[in-house]
Amino acid sequence: MISWLDVYHVISATVPLYVSMILGYLSAKHLQLFTPEQCAGINKFVAKFSIPLLSFQIISQNNPFKMNPKLILSDILQKLLALVVLAVVVRFWHPTGGRGGKLGWVIIGLSVSLFPNTLILGIPILAAIYGDEAASILRQIVVMQSLIWYTILLFLFEINAARAITSSGSEHNTGGNENEEVNREEEELREDEAAIVRTRSTGTMKVLLKACRKLMINPNTYATLIGIIWATLHFRLGWELPEMIDKSIHMISDGGLGMAMFSLGLFMASQRSIIACGTKMTSIAMVLKFVLGPALMIASVFSMRLRHNLFKIAILQAALPQGVVPFVFAKEYNLHPEIVSTGVIFGMLIALPIILAYYFVLDI
Amino acid sequence: MISWLDVYHVISATVPLYVSMILGYLSAKHLQLFTPEQCAGINKFVAKFSIPLLSFQIISQNNPFKMNPKLILSDILQKLLALVVLAVVVRFWHPTGGRGGKLGWVIIGLSVSLFPNTLILGIPILAAIYGDEAASILRQIVVMQSLIWYTILLFLFEINAARAITSSGSEHNTGGNENEEVNREEEELREDEAAIVRTRSTGTMKVLLKACRKLMINPNTYATLIGIIWATLHFRLGWELPEMIDKSIHMISDGGLGMAMFSLGLFMASQRSIIACGTKMTSIAMVLKFVLGPALMIASVFSMRLRHNLFKIAILQAALPQGVVPFVFAKEYNLHPEIVSTGVIFGMLIALPIILAYYFVLDI
Repeated sequence: MISWLDVYHVISATVPLYVSMILGYLSAKHLQLFTPEQCAGINKFVAKFSIPLLSFQIISQNNPFKMNPKLILSDILQKLLALVVLAVVVRFWHPTGGRGGKLGWVIIGLSVSLFPNTLILGIPILAAIYGDEAASILRQIVVMQSLIWYTILLFLFEINAARAITSSGSEHNTGGNENEEVNREEEELREDEAAIVRTRSTGTMKVLLKACRKLMINPNTYATLIGIIWATLHFRLGWELPEMIDKSIHMISDGGLGMAMFSLGLFMASQRSIIACGTKMTSIAMVLKFVLGPALMIASVFSMRLRHNLFKIAILQAALPQGVVPFVFAKEYNLHPEIVSTGVIFGMLIALPIILAYYFVLDI
Repeated sequence: MISWLDVYHVISATVPLYVSMILGYLSAKHLQLFTPEQCAGINKFVAKFSIPLLSFQIISQNNPFKMNPKLILSDILQKLLALVVLAVVVRFWHPTGGRGGKLGWVIIGLSVSLFPNTLILGIPILAAIYGDEAASILRQIVVMQSLIWYTILLFLFEINAARAITSSGSEHNTGGNENEEVNREEEELREDEAAIVRTRSTGTMKVLLKACRKLMINPNTYATLIGIIWATLHFRLGWELPEMIDKSIHMISDGGLGMAMFSLGLFMASQRSIIACGTKMTSIAMVLKFVLGPALMIASVFSMRLRHNLFKIAILQAALPQGVVPFVFAKEYNLHPEIVSTGVIFGMLIALPIILAYYFVLDI
């Protein structure tokens, strides 16, 4: 039976994250402390330094030789089930006016339902409930996310963009908030697109190349790869990170959590509205995130016969609010970014009671 | 006798701070990752959130009922000695072309020689050498700095500005890099100045009011006061900070060190040159900082009969490179900011061998 003390632990792990986020939101929205350009500076610092170093730290602590095969298979199964369910649903019904066609709606469905904010919210909250065991399980989920799922998601976005261009010419355009790098990338992309509209042959190779180029300019790619390589050396050969390097990484990654939440608050303040995509799409997104995602995870962990805390943690992490990475992709490819942003923002706002509800139900 | 291990500890505590700083410098100067406006955003985050929360944390850990009277008196004596020495020197010789006259040169001399970067550099480096004892001593120095010395320094700057206006009309002007708040403050100041040029009476009251207004808009003032009040409640009545508030503060202050050093790197990148004030003034500033400041501290601790580690730590902290706060004042009042900026930047670059040298000599 869950005690009030347990509830207190969850809340006291969650509140500081929200405080940082609200501080960011208020300082940009109401105090007007930061101009949009200054917010972009802070967000860039978080995206280029805090998050990659935090990822490296988490991933390098994960022992690649002791990952739980049942957990990994459950994670994979959940993703496959979601793909099947969404493909079937979209075959018979999908909202009208979609820019990316049916594939676009499937991608958005996957983005909204399958990618919880494990790194920033998951580890501190679930570690407050289940201790080190949760941290060790979530590190494995983070490795899968960073190494496999985000890469596949990026490829799907890229394929969809290539299809959209071939079928209807260049209708690829984006909002005005991107930073310079994205704009530069954008221009290159447009040139590529122009060449493709001309030739009418997209080709898998081209899609692969473009997605690879995007991965190559993303510091998280390097953080993930170096993290895994280091974890291999550490856990196989017993190498230790020299104190100075370890401390240098901590110097910036220690603030990573707070900075990331602050930056999420700035992001919220930059959006037109908290439910930018209307109430109907918001409800659908919330059902996908907090019902479909966890339900498919429940089906997966049952079929893989996960037990005890592993069972509970796998389900609880699937019920965490949506991460920011899918939004970054959706915005970059201009594929319903308003839905994914609502998923992030509104999801964060209603997350705490939902996490507590799942926590209670799982304990019965 | 100091072992190589001791030296290694000092270096391994210092290097991570420099890594953050160099990262900030390179990302603004060579990678052009951040525009000046974006740098301003990061600096503002550091000035409004990281540093005040870090100050609060340090100051609230200091037991106000167990401050060492001899240490406090040595600190006060060092400041008085510096004032006398600088007043005598400036009476007989000072560089030509000074904007603030003799008082201006005394203020710059005090700024450069007496205000080491205790909060950000001092605590991690000296705690690596002497452990918790150093942290406890430096917290007392930080309290003195934040509560008394920076306030007095601000008053001196304000008095000098008022004198300069009365004697020569409004020659108060600043560079173009300030953020909006300073600009607004600036305008109010100009209006006040205009009124004073008209009336030809400055009055102590006016100077006091202006300095108070500056203190009121500085989040560090609040951080310091709340820190001291909380420390009083904690150490006298045994009150504990609720876990959630404590964690919320840590969420942002944990990254404070790294962010502050990163922001110092951005600041370096924003300056025209590392030795903006020329080699002669740079040499004078370095002698003031690394010879005069520590020498006066040595005289003070001898006369106060400090002993053992307290003796060593008091001297070593006086030999730390210059803090950033005096630069902020010097820039705001446009009183030789290029000298104070060189003091910060060049001081950081040559600090490590100097700290090690003092460390060796003190151990003999």
